Amino acid sequence: MTVDRKLNVVPFVSVDHMMKLVLKVGIDTFLAELAATIEEDFHRWPVFDKTPRVGSHSNDGVIELMPTSDGTLYGFKYVNGHPKNTRDGRQTVTAFGVLADAGNGYPLLFSEMTILTALRTAATSALAAKYLARPNSRTMAIIGNGAQSEFQARAFRALLGIQELRLHDIDPAATRKCTRNLTGLGFHIVECKSVADAVEGADIITTVTADKQYATIVSDNHVGPGIHINAVGGDCPGKTEISKEVLLRSDIFVEYPPQTWIEGDIQQLPASHPVTELWRVMAGNAVGRRDDKQITLFDSVGFAIEDFSALRYVRGKIAEFEMFTELDLLADPDEPRDLYGMLLRCEHALKVA
Amino acid sequence: MTVDRKLNVVPFVSVDHMMKLVLKVGIDTFLAELAATIEEDFHRWPVFDKTPRVGSHSNDGVIELMPTSDGTLYGFKYVNGHPKNTRDGRQTVTAFGVLADAGNGYPLLFSEMTILTALRTAATSALAAKYLARPNSRTMAIIGNGAQSEFQARAFRALLGIQELRLHDIDPAATRKCTRNLTGLGFHIVECKSVADAVEGADIITTVTADKQYATIVSDNHVGPGIHINAVGGDCPGKTEISKEVLLRSDIFVEYPPQTWIEGDIQQLPASHPVTELWRVMAGNAVGRRDDKQITLFDSVGFAIEDFSALRYVRGKIAEFEMFTELDLLADPDEPRDLYGMLLRCEHALKVA
Repeated sequence: MTVDRKLNVVPFVSVDHMMKLVLKVGIDTFLAELAATIEEDFHRWPVFDKTPRVGSHSNDGVIELMPTSDGTLYGFKYVNGHPKNTRDGRQTVTAFGVLADAGNGYPLLFSEMTILTALRTAATSALAAKYLARPNSRTMAIIGNGAQSEFQARAFRALLGIQELRLHDIDPAATRKCTRNLTGLGFHIVECKSVADAVEGADIITTVTADKQYATIVSDNHVGPGIHINAVGGDCPGKTEISKEVLLRSDIFVEYPPQTWIEGDIQQLPASHPVTELWRVMAGNAVGRRDDKQITLFDSVGFAIEDFSALRYVRGKIAEFEMFTELDLLADPDEPRDLYGMLLRCEHALKVA
Repeated sequence: MTVDRKLNVVPFVSVDHMMKLVLKVGIDTFLAELAATIEEDFHRWPVFDKTPRVGSHSNDGVIELMPTSDGTLYGFKYVNGHPKNTRDGRQTVTAFGVLADAGNGYPLLFSEMTILTALRTAATSALAAKYLARPNSRTMAIIGNGAQSEFQARAFRALLGIQELRLHDIDPAATRKCTRNLTGLGFHIVECKSVADAVEGADIITTVTADKQYATIVSDNHVGPGIHINAVGGDCPGKTEISKEVLLRSDIFVEYPPQTWIEGDIQQLPASHPVTELWRVMAGNAVGRRDDKQITLFDSVGFAIEDFSALRYVRGKIAEFEMFTELDLLADPDEPRDLYGMLLRCEHALKVA
């Protein structure tokens, strides 16, 4: 192995390093800078290789690979979704990812992405709302107070200045956990017994529920004029949150239509229904919010480019904060064609030792 | 993080650990046991989720993801192919992979696969030849004496008892390297100045050249009756090694037809040309070699199931030989829905420290 160039080595960000990195940078700064990186990549959306994620379904869930490339860098995320996992103390969703040099195929970063996905999902939601919600939005309802809820709250405060949260979950313990975690940050928090209660006076409705089934969390009577709906939890086939009536009254914005039609809330609509790609709004070639009466809806499912942006952002930060270890991941023989000779030299070294 | 169950941890096999594992097990035993594991999985071929690999092409090469699942386990490999990499001392092909529990989506193993891919490719070649070459085969020509050549030689000796090697490469230095690496193992090695010279008297012709272009390494006049051709190097679009005339005289065996039609030597043939899936020969529902005059050709491109088998085999071995470290890869909050709370507790711990 060449020690000077260390071609064998890939930087690895563990869960512990990711937490420390986020905390050293500061959660608000991290979310804001991450959103800026995502925005940068959405602005150059057409240069990316795009494909719906590649899923492998089993009885209990799905494992997905989400690759993309801008021609210079390549990234992919591995992510699972297993709703029953919480029964034995596991996460419903875990993830890790790799960023690589597209020019030579060598990985540049291997990182945990369970925490990073929570952050990028929240950053993307808040970024979309920056373009789609009414500019003076201050109050957000959060329906579903599980693992994603606090990240949504933090991102919406960091990017939009959301101050009042109206929390609701079918499990009051989840709401209490969310309130407890967000206490002391200056939010005005109202715990609500019903969806109807939670949406009362909200400028933005965020739905982040976890049921894997066609559910109607938000019904027609919950949604008044001018609302922005941030629909995060309807994110796989058969899993929806927003009633069809609400969808039909809304202008709908999506990440990558071929994937959203499969996974998003719009799977309830005929394929002819018009949707707008979010990147076009950011790039200025499509209209976002037209007026204060319009209902806007971001049908978020999570797309590979957001993970690519997140890995790109983290790669820039870990060098500065030294939050990584080095993995001996890539065979690096003295002579590239002599992979077998590397084994022989290792054998010799073991005999000598 | 729960320390007792260590749900956050994934075993990691570095390059160094992989080399030591292979050497401790013994190269011949490793190749034979790996081939047996691949054979086991080929026998239950229909249970696997199958898809052609998902590639991202750039000017200089390709990065591919190769996923598969048997419903209980899930595996994928990341592999690049960048022919110009050797110019600056990098490997043309590097790889790593993950085996996961399909039932909960949690990774069970993260492993280097550059060395492991070389071993599994050779093991698959020899396994195919066990079914397709004449039973008394003793002499093999190896055309292309790069990184894969010695692994092929070792696997064919371990599984078929190949004793005489006839080596040829357009670069004589590659042949010398191959001879040097294989000296002392009891092979009778003949260095040959041409392909015509190398194939003289060979029972098996193995082609493992690296050019990314339509090349004709093996022509019609090189191939006599009864030969088995192990065509390994024609493995991506536009990259072939075997002349069309030879293909038309051969009975062709492939791994997964939808992928081989894109990547293999058969990309030169009309899609109506008959090919036989190798697993059917192993399972006994298709005929392999009929007689001693027949020319058989294994158009090897490498399929995800072979990598799955390799990861499955390595997973069984690392526990026994303790050849792994533990990576803190999966966020494991005290309460599954409280990912954000895990960040808060880390913040608290940092403040206290």
